[in-house]
Amino acid sequence: MSSDSPTRNGADLLLQTLVANGVTTCFANPGTSEMQFVAALDRAPDMRAVLCLFEGVATGAADGYARMSDSPAATLLHLGPGYLNGGANLHNARRARSPVVNVVGDHATYHRQFDAPLNSDIAGMSRPNSKWVGSAESPDDVSRLACEAVVTSRAKPAGPVTFILPADSAWLSTSTTPCVEALALPTAPSVDRIRALADRFRQSEAPVVLLGGDACDERALSAASRLARAGARIFTESFVARQRRGGDHFAPTRLAYFAEAAEAELAGTDLLLLVESQAPVAFFAYPGRASELTPDGCAVEVLASPAEDGAAALHALADALDAPAPQAMERDESVPQSPNGDLNAHLAGATIARHLPANAIISDDAVTAGQPIFDATRSAAAHDWLMLTGGAIGQGIPVAIGAAVACPDRKVISLNGDGAAMYTIQSLWTLARERLDVVVVVFANSAYRILGVEFTRTGSGDRPGPASQRLLDLGDPLIDWVALGQSMGVRSERCLTGEQFERAFAAAVGTPGPHLIEAVTGRAGRQAYGGSGAG
Amino acid sequence: MSSDSPTRNGADLLLQTLVANGVTTCFANPGTSEMQFVAALDRAPDMRAVLCLFEGVATGAADGYARMSDSPAATLLHLGPGYLNGGANLHNARRARSPVVNVVGDHATYHRQFDAPLNSDIAGMSRPNSKWVGSAESPDDVSRLACEAVVTSRAKPAGPVTFILPADSAWLSTSTTPCVEALALPTAPSVDRIRALADRFRQSEAPVVLLGGDACDERALSAASRLARAGARIFTESFVARQRRGGDHFAPTRLAYFAEAAEAELAGTDLLLLVESQAPVAFFAYPGRASELTPDGCAVEVLASPAEDGAAALHALADALDAPAPQAMERDESVPQSPNGDLNAHLAGATIARHLPANAIISDDAVTAGQPIFDATRSAAAHDWLMLTGGAIGQGIPVAIGAAVACPDRKVISLNGDGAAMYTIQSLWTLARERLDVVVVVFANSAYRILGVEFTRTGSGDRPGPASQRLLDLGDPLIDWVALGQSMGVRSERCLTGEQFERAFAAAVGTPGPHLIEAVTGRAGRQAYGGSGAG
Repeated sequence: MSSDSPTRNGADLLLQTLVANGVTTCFANPGTSEMQFVAALDRAPDMRAVLCLFEGVATGAADGYARMSDSPAATLLHLGPGYLNGGANLHNARRARSPVVNVVGDHATYHRQFDAPLNSDIAGMSRPNSKWVGSAESPDDVSRLACEAVVTSRAKPAGPVTFILPADSAWLSTSTTPCVEALALPTAPSVDRIRALADRFRQSEAPVVLLGGDACDERALSAASRLARAGARIFTESFVARQRRGGDHFAPTRLAYFAEAAEAELAGTDLLLLVESQAPVAFFAYPGRASELTPDGCAVEVLASPAEDGAAALHALADALDAPAPQAMERDESVPQSPNGDLNAHLAGATIARHLPANAIISDDAVTAGQPIFDATRSAAAHDWLMLTGGAIGQGIPVAIGAAVACPDRKVISLNGDGAAMYTIQSLWTLARERLDVVVVVFANSAYRILGVEFTRTGSGDRPGPASQRLLDLGDPLIDWVALGQSMGVRSERCLTGEQFERAFAAAVGTPGPHLIEAVTGRAGRQAYGGSGAG
Repeated sequence: MSSDSPTRNGADLLLQTLVANGVTTCFANPGTSEMQFVAALDRAPDMRAVLCLFEGVATGAADGYARMSDSPAATLLHLGPGYLNGGANLHNARRARSPVVNVVGDHATYHRQFDAPLNSDIAGMSRPNSKWVGSAESPDDVSRLACEAVVTSRAKPAGPVTFILPADSAWLSTSTTPCVEALALPTAPSVDRIRALADRFRQSEAPVVLLGGDACDERALSAASRLARAGARIFTESFVARQRRGGDHFAPTRLAYFAEAAEAELAGTDLLLLVESQAPVAFFAYPGRASELTPDGCAVEVLASPAEDGAAALHALADALDAPAPQAMERDESVPQSPNGDLNAHLAGATIARHLPANAIISDDAVTAGQPIFDATRSAAAHDWLMLTGGAIGQGIPVAIGAAVACPDRKVISLNGDGAAMYTIQSLWTLARERLDVVVVVFANSAYRILGVEFTRTGSGDRPGPASQRLLDLGDPLIDWVALGQSMGVRSERCLTGEQFERAFAAAVGTPGPHLIEAVTGRAGRQAYGGSGAG
């Protein structure tokens, strides 16, 4: 069946509609109910399918792809359980406002009533993390609904959508044709709003601009830099989907993760302008601490909602204020020049900053190791930094996969906590299968270290006792990350010292293809592998 | 705080209530919002917490524990994403009718309104696979709701429940005390129903009894054997949660997986008696094939619903029919005695049958390798066989973990397809951490072989083309299961031939603790590791 034939089956029509609407990549983990879609791939040369060995890899990859591409990717998931396996990274994608078109195969429409073992309420379970849910109950519905899915997914604020494809809607023929729908561009805020906010800005003694969403890109940062010169302090949300940084890009302050630190940063602010962001709240609640972090008496105004064009709004405000031109950032030359001694995140950060290739992409799921490296790379070569937007660890390597597929000419660095990387460790296989240009760094502190920190903060007590400590420790058994990486075909090596990491990282970024570096930063690993034993 | 103190926090109260109601094991993957629960474990010595590095391991383990224990286990999951990660194995648990008490931490009640990054609709996403969903909006609600959760989870038909624990309900003090609630026993069918069905049975020319749920245990099989002697053919559903078999146990026929084979098996049946089972339907729909597998004109009657005591109903019917006493099974001595040549599932099955320790537990997630081993072990030493009830592959090692925790004196054999094992491969770490007595066999055919079979059956075409073949193949890169097992602290070895597998399996079952055997059954592995290269 060629794509010109007057009839096609629903699976063919879905693939043709996706491609016609710019969706040309599919991260897939199919099962029997998706075999028609799989077979149709042989007739759809413009769709690239990437096999993932677990659905959370597929959905995280689609998130990463969306962050780095103008168009969303599709996923291919196997009924309700497939959706659930991909669900945590779709939670992150929803928080990243990443467009993702999830294609979820289902039983044939007439078969659902018999409640076969794989039957479940796909629409119900997917709704909380879906901007849109639809099911093609006939092959004649496929094209119209697929268009709606793609356009809804992409429209700001973007997000994941769930397109349910019953098996008979895939295998039956249809004479309907692929439709294409144009995307509405986001609007800029009105002149009146800009004028009013410019007045407020001039009257403010301590204005803050808080960037989120798409308003961390080059165009937005350039305008934010002008507002900084006009007297504002510029922050980003603690976790943004994608931030352009390094080189001579303006560097806003990243709002602190811990609530009390963020409160201190925002103290004294009398005007908070939100740009595709939310008024800051604590990541978690703690006994006796506030949830809302905006200072008392501070006015909160929306310069641009997540549905609007934040960069345009920033430029309009800067123009209304007659703000000076953007200023190139001064490079911070204070990074240490010769790392040595037991490896830690600060030393690793210095090495990464020194050797980061121009225009690299960093996928950060490094938890406690992330902030030091973020700080260290402020003046590195220009790059994009992708963060954990939804707090569901296990997205680092999947997002790197998607970024690498979207941007084959750019080096991708995937930073991971050891605990985080284990959630979706099957992702290493796809790196090797697709020969993706990704350097995976796993910070092996052999603990859920963030939980050790949070344990005392939640008022649980001073120190974990034996039973609770056992739930925070990953050192027994020690995970051998080199063996783990090699088992899935990824070149892997272990570093215990700053010098070793310097050599390994420089070599890895200088060689195409996937690499894994185990950065031993914990006592258990140092003792086992012959380091100094210092913790 | 001791357990006798007049006030306790909500987390203490939850743990005390769970223990008081017989829930003494918790498979945990906690985060910050669960730190109060974790801290309370130090004050709850009767609760055993088992750390899992991914939530799907925890939920699968809880399913396995429930199948082998009189009481359910709890899980500890981190908000909505934690629930989603555990969701696929909860789908399987729902289909297994396994009681599981999922404790899902949530933001503090007052914090939810601010929609922090980890906020989501936990109740909404958990409802499709939960028999009951409740949230303790105050610490004073914890005990009452926890009782309700446990009792609801256990009452036939049992199933997973979702207990949402907001952080403040965990950390605030309460003067309420742990409550205990008795479980209602399942009822046996009425004398009238038994009498009526006995009449129907006598009038039937070709009666079939279809066993499911708890009606595959020793007590039920004994009665089923009497009905067989009275002229019935006895089947089990294709996938049951737990079946007692081997030794001299009566061996019903396992209804075939493929619909056309099941139809052939049931042809001519004029009376179908359901015992905790559903009228058989095709696992998947296929173009032009029927969904319902019961022959036309066959009467379908419920001898015992899933809410009732199926074994009691079987005995009552056998008594009403004056059926003869159960007969010990004849042992099938036809298993090959000296396996040799390239390893395949049939040879592996013969070895497993020969060396299976008495009273072993088999967790079967072996997909295409499962049936040959099931067939081969019909006359092995007495054992329990646990099946994939919901079709969501990736439960094999997690269920084995739960079974091994529930039954520390019994050897557990975990049979896995390579594709299936990859979904929850982090489970190997928990095997090593807990020194569980589990032999993991991975059948490495380097393919989603079942999908290769299904591809042609779905009417997709004769053979996969290049694009679709790439989604069915796991051989590039080849997964090195020995390195993978060793990376997580599990003794591992590779077998290419029947002789090697015979030696390795005999040694593994003879030595306590976790082992992994890579059973190479695919062409790619044989070529890479120096076997004959035959596919």
